[in-house]
Amino acid sequence: MKWVDYESAACSVARTVDVLGDRWTLLVLRDIFNGIRRFDEISAHPGVARDVLTKRLAVLVGEDLVERVPYREPGARTRYEYRLTDAGRDLRPVLLALLEWGDRYRSDPAGPPAHLFHAECGAPVHVEVRCSAGHEICSRTRLAARPGPGSRRRAAA
Amino acid sequence: MKWVDYESAACSVARTVDVLGDRWTLLVLRDIFNGIRRFDEISAHPGVARDVLTKRLAVLVGEDLVERVPYREPGARTRYEYRLTDAGRDLRPVLLALLEWGDRYRSDPAGPPAHLFHAECGAPVHVEVRCSAGHEICSRTRLAARPGPGSRRRAAA
Repeated sequence: MKWVDYESAACSVARTVDVLGDRWTLLVLRDIFNGIRRFDEISAHPGVARDVLTKRLAVLVGEDLVERVPYREPGARTRYEYRLTDAGRDLRPVLLALLEWGDRYRSDPAGPPAHLFHAECGAPVHVEVRCSAGHEICSRTRLAARPGPGSRRRAAA
Repeated sequence: MKWVDYESAACSVARTVDVLGDRWTLLVLRDIFNGIRRFDEISAHPGVARDVLTKRLAVLVGEDLVERVPYREPGARTRYEYRLTDAGRDLRPVLLALLEWGDRYRSDPAGPPAHLFHAECGAPVHVEVRCSAGHEICSRTRLAARPGPGSRRRAAA
């Protein structure tokens, strides 16, 4: 499969990037993954302006990554918090892959800002790429591709 | 570790997103991963305007993800192609995680646009999250975090 002969826009990376491809969307999603669910808390944490946050949350809800759930504290009006949907939760490997790269290449000299671990056993967590025959896929392991059922050839130039 | 008490900007996800957080940067990187290395080819493929591409390649070179390598065809002036550095190649898990999510959630009804496999053995490739004790980390597996040496507490509000 010669990649240049296929349509860029049909690619699954491009489609995911279209959903996530904004800095704030990813940071808001990260905060929701980390248990920050309420509008005011999300807004204060990465320092995102309220109108920008409103738009990004609408995108996340519209793309079905996040759902709005009403809550009400005594004496206050109904407000909403934001929780991951199954599709949103399935972005965990994306966020962890971003985290690992940043830990390795963009940490302060002192070291990474946080250590993530498996709550049940306490062991650190990491992202692996493997083939279904069990081989580890490293950065230099050669991969190949073949067109799938949703591939689209580009019109000849 | 209560995430809301720590500075968003020191987070490794935020720092990686700062490097990659532009739609075109990720698509250009994807094309270079897929062996499209020359300016004209990259520009034609996802349809990125030449001035935008020039800027994005400068970012990728400046961030040390990509290097410019001169080449010269007979009778033509020296031109440059773009190749991944080691740091760039180490973004493979990020791109594969984006790809997998898109295959699952944004494919055409017919199915994914491409199948990636391990060139040596032919088996399909996938991203896994595990802890170092060997447990598989699924979307609903509970993770926890503790501050690392580069953590920064937020100033009290």
